[in-house]
Amino acid sequence: MRSIEVCFSPELIHLHEVTGKLVVVVDIFRATSTMVAALAHGVTEILPFADLESCRAMQAQGYLIAGERDGLTAPGFELGNSPVAYIDGTYAGRKLAMTTTNGTVALEKSKGAATVLIGAFPNLQATVTYIQSRNLDVLIHCAGWKGRFNLEDSLYAGALVQALGESHSNREDGALAMGSLFSLEGGNLATYLSQASHAKRLQNHGIESDIDFCLTLNRYDQVVGLVGDGALRVIEG
Amino acid sequence: MRSIEVCFSPELIHLHEVTGKLVVVVDIFRATSTMVAALAHGVTEILPFADLESCRAMQAQGYLIAGERDGLTAPGFELGNSPVAYIDGTYAGRKLAMTTTNGTVALEKSKGAATVLIGAFPNLQATVTYIQSRNLDVLIHCAGWKGRFNLEDSLYAGALVQALGESHSNREDGALAMGSLFSLEGGNLATYLSQASHAKRLQNHGIESDIDFCLTLNRYDQVVGLVGDGALRVIEG
Repeated sequence: MRSIEVCFSPELIHLHEVTGKLVVVVDIFRATSTMVAALAHGVTEILPFADLESCRAMQAQGYLIAGERDGLTAPGFELGNSPVAYIDGTYAGRKLAMTTTNGTVALEKSKGAATVLIGAFPNLQATVTYIQSRNLDVLIHCAGWKGRFNLEDSLYAGALVQALGESHSNREDGALAMGSLFSLEGGNLATYLSQASHAKRLQNHGIESDIDFCLTLNRYDQVVGLVGDGALRVIEG
Repeated sequence: MRSIEVCFSPELIHLHEVTGKLVVVVDIFRATSTMVAALAHGVTEILPFADLESCRAMQAQGYLIAGERDGLTAPGFELGNSPVAYIDGTYAGRKLAMTTTNGTVALEKSKGAATVLIGAFPNLQATVTYIQSRNLDVLIHCAGWKGRFNLEDSLYAGALVQALGESHSNREDGALAMGSLFSLEGGNLATYLSQASHAKRLQNHGIESDIDFCLTLNRYDQVVGLVGDGALRVIEG
């Protein structure tokens, strides 16, 4: 019986054991959704950066650069944090350097795990199947919003807890709570999440199409993970 | 329309605005349940301490001293952290100095609020009525377990969110999630919480009577709060 736990914020990750676990990093609105979209549509690798400067500097090395702060494209960047920017295949074959408000911080703090995956609703089932093929305890690391709990990352955690119910039945408190919450609201995701503070923030930016994309289930078969050299790539599918 | 939010850990409280709010400190298993029991059964005041030494020193000033670490009575203390120790009135008229693993830390970090209340299921409705008589935004500060999310404090938060649905309908993400969770599991509290990690920890200590007490609803009319001199007292009822 494998265990599953949820860390609701990068500011709490030091209280969780990362070593030896399979860590799923989640930033539904929108970093991890964008990473999955970019790689599923042909971007060959993504280098995540916690700070803007290091990310911007990658342009000189031929990388496409994507930078977001507070929901908007950061000054001097070619792309922000919109998953739909990738779906027509414009950037297929390119390498991407990326920094976002919350997601890349969570990713940085997940290093040291046995495996780090990128979680998003559009490839949920593929990620579930991959996890079931491994024999590892799972830690879901929610990026949250500037360190605080957020609803969309937590509900994705609940979806994963429910889907892994048979292989990972040893649930700590956060996993128990989010599994229950998803069983209640999972059939009603878009409506329920429309109350979430970050969805409201994004609505103010006029990017409803991003929200729709981020809440679409199982559009892709690709599993995305961190590989040895610190890049994100499609690791299966 | 007043706002209500939940902070799931004292390690996240710096991300929430405390000033000007009504903060409810929650440590269901067992610090805040014990505080309510002690004061409802005649203890005249409780001085909370974050560390063992300062608390122990109060014995010389005539205080009854209660100290708990990791669920057990700390060495040299007269009492641990059991609410049922107070219910026969043995300690009526006494003043109490108290330190616990999680609860007193959360209390210390709540100072600066307009009002600090102590939350527990045995006086839930009294607390709700008191909050409704005030016109303040509410922040529920869960003590958690050594900084991590826990199920029982979060469910109490959900109970409060649901009960304050009309006066405090502006719910941030944590309040939304916990309100939903309580609507699903609130009728089934003892069974649901028997899966919680801290309940299991307490069961190992053979103190099921404490768990039963802590999950009893509305046994008391007393509202407990922090008063100006740093002591906890009955402030209404």
